[in-house]
Amino acid sequence: MRNKPWAIDYLESNNHIVDVNNTYSKRIKEFFSEDRPVHIEVGTGMGTFVTTLAQNNPDINYVGIEIDKNVMIRVTEKVVELGLTNVRLLLLDANKLMEYFNEGEIDKVYLNFSDPWPKTRHAKRRLTHKNFLTSYKQLLKEGSLVEFKTDNRGLFEFSLMSMNAFGMKFENLNLDVHDDEPKENIRTEYEEKFSQRGHKIYWIQASF
Amino acid sequence: MRNKPWAIDYLESNNHIVDVNNTYSKRIKEFFSEDRPVHIEVGTGMGTFVTTLAQNNPDINYVGIEIDKNVMIRVTEKVVELGLTNVRLLLLDANKLMEYFNEGEIDKVYLNFSDPWPKTRHAKRRLTHKNFLTSYKQLLKEGSLVEFKTDNRGLFEFSLMSMNAFGMKFENLNLDVHDDEPKENIRTEYEEKFSQRGHKIYWIQASF
Repeated sequence: MRNKPWAIDYLESNNHIVDVNNTYSKRIKEFFSEDRPVHIEVGTGMGTFVTTLAQNNPDINYVGIEIDKNVMIRVTEKVVELGLTNVRLLLLDANKLMEYFNEGEIDKVYLNFSDPWPKTRHAKRRLTHKNFLTSYKQLLKEGSLVEFKTDNRGLFEFSLMSMNAFGMKFENLNLDVHDDEPKENIRTEYEEKFSQRGHKIYWIQASF
Repeated sequence: MRNKPWAIDYLESNNHIVDVNNTYSKRIKEFFSEDRPVHIEVGTGMGTFVTTLAQNNPDINYVGIEIDKNVMIRVTEKVVELGLTNVRLLLLDANKLMEYFNEGEIDKVYLNFSDPWPKTRHAKRRLTHKNFLTSYKQLLKEGSLVEFKTDNRGLFEFSLMSMNAFGMKFENLNLDVHDDEPKENIRTEYEEKFSQRGHKIYWIQASF
């Protein structure tokens, strides 16, 4: 995505939707008009997933987290266009989750088509590395789910190994989502594109 | 496979290779000419896997376990043809493993292309059901591996869930063995056939 020099200005002018400067750090509930369970997506990309989910589930508050300011413009535009009051966005590095949220205040974590970081020396950057799992465990309520979907086989293999080693409980698992698609599955543009290229879509729900 | 009325007679006439009547129950080591680590394959099918493995690893004693007497004829013929002294066969129901073996005397368990038993009411017959895992844990030495390969997605999903729920540790995992094939992978006729039909081959090594 091309760099947009006006990105931060645009995002700050929409500070009722996107938190650029950690304004709602440690008080995320105040960012929403109503108190509802809070689900987060770490790495929203273009935001199709989180905005569709938010439309389908008006009784949940969604937090979309994305570090790329240029990408975040698109998500913000979608939230504005759709007039969603139950989606708020954080321009935040996933490594800073525990600095931003309080322990045990989140009800679900979504990860979708996360960057695979295929080189071994970058394994710590994968969003299912044990360091991230440690964060999710802290910020989630007891027994809550991490839900993860990807078309990247290597990342999914790593994630199954990592979650298993961490002692997470696998609640649901699908190694070919499009062959056996739950009606609630949300296909993003990315998911459509890579499925058409013959990639399998992998999915897991797991708890701590 | 067609029923062969002479099957039991044939197998009994090869009782130096195949144990039809639990003769070596609780004393499997006496079935072999030399004392070596014992690896078992539960469900040998036609026996390509176990006989190839035995040729490649002369320092291991292999026990092929199969309940179908007609299938067992083919495996026995292979062992005879190849003159293998490090493969012995048991005509045995997998449910009777713990009646046959002593605790902690096995160094590895192989499961290959096991019957998927797709109906939920038959889940207990799947060779990765927790009841079977309980047996494998008892008969394996501490820290030993279960190695499982299949082209059946439903069975593999079930197996990952079952092994994870049992507290097994995933040591290695591959969701498309033929795309990323270890040189030691043994392709059986069955594996070739279903791979050519576009099935992915799934593989895991896990320990207790």
